[in-house]
Amino acid sequence: MMIIMNPGASRSQIEHVIKHIEDAHLSPHVIEGIEQTIIGAVGDTHAVPTSLFEVLPGVLTVTRISKPYKLSSRQFHPENSVFPLDGFSIGGKEIPVIAGPCSVESRSQLLEIAHAVKEAGANALRGGVFKPRTSPYVFQGLGEEGLEYLAEAREQTGLPVVVEIMAVSQVEVMEKFVDVMQIGARNMQNYNLLRAVGETRTAVLLKRGLSATLEELLMASEYILSGGNTRVMLCERGIRTFETATRNTTDINAVPVLKEMTHLPVILDPSHSTGVAGYVPSIAKSAVAAGADGIIVEVHNDPTHALSDGKQSLTPEDFAKMVRDLKRVAQAVDRDLVSSK
Amino acid sequence: MMIIMNPGASRSQIEHVIKHIEDAHLSPHVIEGIEQTIIGAVGDTHAVPTSLFEVLPGVLTVTRISKPYKLSSRQFHPENSVFPLDGFSIGGKEIPVIAGPCSVESRSQLLEIAHAVKEAGANALRGGVFKPRTSPYVFQGLGEEGLEYLAEAREQTGLPVVVEIMAVSQVEVMEKFVDVMQIGARNMQNYNLLRAVGETRTAVLLKRGLSATLEELLMASEYILSGGNTRVMLCERGIRTFETATRNTTDINAVPVLKEMTHLPVILDPSHSTGVAGYVPSIAKSAVAAGADGIIVEVHNDPTHALSDGKQSLTPEDFAKMVRDLKRVAQAVDRDLVSSK
Amino acid sequence: MMIIMNPGASRSQIEHVIKHIEDAHLSPHVIEGIEQTIIGAVGDTHAVPTSLFEVLPGVLTVTRISKPYKLSSRQFHPENSVFPLDGFSIGGKEIPVIAGPCSVESRSQLLEIAHAVKEAGANALRGGVFKPRTSPYVFQGLGEEGLEYLAEAREQTGLPVVVEIMAVSQVEVMEKFVDVMQIGARNMQNYNLLRAVGETRTAVLLKRGLSATLEELLMASEYILSGGNTRVMLCERGIRTFETATRNTTDINAVPVLKEMTHLPVILDPSHSTGVAGYVPSIAKSAVAAGADGIIVEVHNDPTHALSDGKQSLTPEDFAKMVRDLKRVAQAVDRDLVSSK
Amino acid sequence: MMIIMNPGASRSQIEHVIKHIEDAHLSPHVIEGIEQTIIGAVGDTHAVPTSLFEVLPGVLTVTRISKPYKLSSRQFHPENSVFPLDGFSIGGKEIPVIAGPCSVESRSQLLEIAHAVKEAGANALRGGVFKPRTSPYVFQGLGEEGLEYLAEAREQTGLPVVVEIMAVSQVEVMEKFVDVMQIGARNMQNYNLLRAVGETRTAVLLKRGLSATLEELLMASEYILSGGNTRVMLCERGIRTFETATRNTTDINAVPVLKEMTHLPVILDPSHSTGVAGYVPSIAKSAVAAGADGIIVEVHNDPTHALSDGKQSLTPEDFAKMVRDLKRVAQAVDRDLVSSK
Repeated sequence: MMIIMNPGASRSQIEHVIKHIEDAHLSPHVIEGIEQTIIGAVGDTHAVPTSLFEVLPGVLTVTRISKPYKLSSRQFHPENSVFPLDGFSIGGKEIPVIAGPCSVESRSQLLEIAHAVKEAGANALRGGVFKPRTSPYVFQGLGEEGLEYLAEAREQTGLPVVVEIMAVSQVEVMEKFVDVMQIGARNMQNYNLLRAVGETRTAVLLKRGLSATLEELLMASEYILSGGNTRVMLCERGIRTFETATRNTTDINAVPVLKEMTHLPVILDPSHSTGVAGYVPSIAKSAVAAGADGIIVEVHNDPTHALSDGKQSLTPEDFAKMVRDLKRVAQAVDRDLVSSK
Repeated sequence: MMIIMNPGASRSQIEHVIKHIEDAHLSPHVIEGIEQTIIGAVGDTHAVPTSLFEVLPGVLTVTRISKPYKLSSRQFHPENSVFPLDGFSIGGKEIPVIAGPCSVESRSQLLEIAHAVKEAGANALRGGVFKPRTSPYVFQGLGEEGLEYLAEAREQTGLPVVVEIMAVSQVEVMEKFVDVMQIGARNMQNYNLLRAVGETRTAVLLKRGLSATLEELLMASEYILSGGNTRVMLCERGIRTFETATRNTTDINAVPVLKEMTHLPVILDPSHSTGVAGYVPSIAKSAVAAGADGIIVEVHNDPTHALSDGKQSLTPEDFAKMVRDLKRVAQAVDRDLVSSK
Repeated sequence: MMIIMNPGASRSQIEHVIKHIEDAHLSPHVIEGIEQTIIGAVGDTHAVPTSLFEVLPGVLTVTRISKPYKLSSRQFHPENSVFPLDGFSIGGKEIPVIAGPCSVESRSQLLEIAHAVKEAGANALRGGVFKPRTSPYVFQGLGEEGLEYLAEAREQTGLPVVVEIMAVSQVEVMEKFVDVMQIGARNMQNYNLLRAVGETRTAVLLKRGLSATLEELLMASEYILSGGNTRVMLCERGIRTFETATRNTTDINAVPVLKEMTHLPVILDPSHSTGVAGYVPSIAKSAVAAGADGIIVEVHNDPTHALSDGKQSLTPEDFAKMVRDLKRVAQAVDRDLVSSK
Repeated sequence: MMIIMNPGASRSQIEHVIKHIEDAHLSPHVIEGIEQTIIGAVGDTHAVPTSLFEVLPGVLTVTRISKPYKLSSRQFHPENSVFPLDGFSIGGKEIPVIAGPCSVESRSQLLEIAHAVKEAGANALRGGVFKPRTSPYVFQGLGEEGLEYLAEAREQTGLPVVVEIMAVSQVEVMEKFVDVMQIGARNMQNYNLLRAVGETRTAVLLKRGLSATLEELLMASEYILSGGNTRVMLCERGIRTFETATRNTTDINAVPVLKEMTHLPVILDPSHSTGVAGYVPSIAKSAVAAGADGIIVEVHNDPTHALSDGKQSLTPEDFAKMVRDLKRVAQAVDRDLVSSK
């Protein structure tokens, strides 16, 4: 940690900082510049908040040198994490495609879509049953009834299921029914929920918050990893910017940056990151070309009657075409799609 | 709702949209432009999602005309909501000041600060016991032990207490101990939590999310209001932008805009919206001048040893000066601070 | 154009709006909703600013239906614009790669890089001679001396040259020396400059401003196109967001969105959009996969001694590898790189 | 400057950095941390770009300690800059109000507004004659004809005039006609223009770019100051964020932050920072309460017929009321408005 003093900081202020460094069991190193003094604090600064020094008189600013995340870092775990889901792996050379409706709306809707995406080459089935909706006045999901339909779809197709969890009270039923628990963007910093899923051994798909930095995304993953649950995949799903032509802005830089920062698998959700079905295939291809380890998309058998997110849902036909195209791009970057069972 | 068709939309696509409008029990009005056709859908569109039409073939975009929020709107409730807390009102001519430490750290720390802010003119005491921290490796709050200290501080000073709630499981203990439950920025769209506090009759201080629009803030308040809890105050606490000179960007426009959109009281938190104690008094004064109904700030008796947010905490002396200055600004805009008991 | 009235708008306010619509030679269409009245204004609204109606009493908001850009739109020119540069075309099936140093620093530096990028497969040479630098205290470019070196490099390699223009006074010398004039991000809305290059017949590479919407980028292109200069290519070079892990955020969505909005070629600059050489190849590949019509990157023979942008410059070796990889991705999306001469 | 090495940086990489530091005539100070080595580079780093070290092998990141701006800094000039305009000063205890139309539209329009704002207490007259418009198809300003009307308005009212300059070629005529040259937000980084106005001795009002950081605003002012023109005032006019309820987001934090960073006067433009006339008075009051040294607002005698920005223009009556209210707020923070002549 580097503590940068104000240009006019006094000798006694500098000594005061040095004392605080020593009290924190770190060792101080003073550099006297022309305008300002800088004090390095060396040692295990991992759990030392910068605020400890920021508030001292004469301190201008404090810069953390070593990263505040640990279990998710490449330093801690240099090799890619590759972990098995039901019938395939994520994080390795092969790239899985997760597909399904935004919301489970009915038994027949779900089964129809499940078979269609399976046929088209999907490796896992997504479907929401507890829906985080901006308005309290619209469809909020089928709840546990939806989980039963998902179980049936899994039985019929063999596809593992990915479902968003919204509350600590849902952990138990989720553990029973789902293969991957998704933490949505709005809950990325719901720390009680992160801790609760960290206590389980169910795989987790952690979505980046709308205005979360990549470092904050990794800090959120630390809450899960530190509970002992190591099967965490990170998901870029678009960030909020000034641009209004698309629902969100796909931060494609996040793919190579995260791959450098962390060993965890990185997937991309072009449905949410664009908000428009017509742009989804282009962005899915760009994600694979950039090095993403997986793709998650919304598919609906009848987008014009979807109860949510119809605008950004692919039809099964468009999805099938996209999978074929993705395969070619994957191979062009020396990877491949997971071969469907 | 206005449905704007693509320039090349066909006659049958237009008729398809009209049929969907009628199915939603709305009445269609067609305007044929030179390049495009626009179709108005008139009726109670409050619970009709725009996605119902966005997904239809030939539709370019759908614009909502009437607002999706209702109970929080000026149309529903034209007059300012003024509601009592313990010993004073919020939303009227008098402006309360809420102050206290970021975190309750110990009994003696809290009591010392409570007496100091009371003396300086605060009308309510804030203090966190369950802390949402970016890192799992730092101080996470005293939990229920902290609530008991807050109860003691209230008894000694007569100040009502404002405490952040982070999980549905905390509702019961919160109802017992606190006067105002705060929903933090990171939980603004934690819908299960919003519903749960909406079921109580404890006042709520709802903070705007880091990247939430003002419309989304009002939609979040609808979750609480629709549960029957009408004592909701909204809090601007800074948004995330590209500027890094301050922790967040105070969106001062939010004050007059929210006062126009909603009847709910609007308060401002300059501690979080700037992140630097030295800027807090300026921004607090600007908020009162802009029309805010209250101010909430962090005060610490020893900011250099605070376990969290020391950098943005005022000393009791600086706080006392700020209150004196705020009173002058309040009077210059024909209001006043709440006179302390 | 749709004019949405306030819920409480009076009959005379509505009539006042209708009169203004007629005065603007448009025809009014009134829809009376339950809460509000909407008035459509039909006709050629292309040059009618929304502000004409926004300021009228009783008007809540005005929504433009037809786009304010025209010459750059797909409606005006449905087919892709494909236009020749020196020895190749842009906007068609083949994708050119433009490469070179951020700044021309010396004759030997430029010639060495020019030969290296030519060898590696580049189709055009970039190099700055008038540099827009945030600080007045650092290297500002070689000026016209640099243009002469570029001319020599073109003669030796056959590569057309792309150079940034910063002022109207540079138009004459630019027309003499360069094949493509680049308008930088900071000058995207320097309207005098846009008009001046619109008067020339030299091809233009127009970069998106740091916080410009895609619609604003097209409006800027209108300034050039309306001068009669039709050889305009648009360039996504990253936007400014809250994320600090990269210099800018590559808005990859811009590629499919622009391809839908406009017939102009769309290229991407991964050097500026990431700011880090290590991320450039991933993002270049993602751009080609998403449908970009070209790539422009910074290459330096000795990045550690570059006078500007060394951090984001590829070495000639890394560039050569990137070109080979791009070719594979291009073919995987049924396109190809321009074959080098 | 602090150079932070990668965790695995080798001894020879560290020595390579040290050599570069010495070559730049700085002195190196090495701190070996547990994970990483940090190297301080001490000396006059003012004109040393961070990129000099960022590109070296083994370097993770480089942090500048001393600020890159100099002439505008408080270190260079600790006291507030107070400088005279025609008949009053800016930067001192008294706060001037600048008002006038967005565009000069006609002689009669300008003279009518000029008299009205003078009467209501304005200290200077603003009015655009060269207009930066997003669309090439709308009114672009009266040009030099407008300057003559402004000269006449000045003669009749005694008010100095503030006019936006858009191109280097306009410097000469501007010097002849105007008292303050305004650099608009879109030209904040038009370096040729900044240099050109820096060569004059006409006062400059420099507006912050839509996505410019406060540090970048100061760097832009360095271009003017380093030409010897010291009468520069900075203007916050709203930044671009995700929020769409207002045209821009007023960054009110900029006021106390800039007052700390620089000795230059800081003014605020609530017309552009909100985009809605109804919010202007609240935000003007907030700016004065926060410590702004001046206010610039748009006033139009007939906003419903304004050729630009009518939506955000105050009527003369609303402006007169606002001035009375501002005076009370100014006095509440121990300042005052400039008394009109």
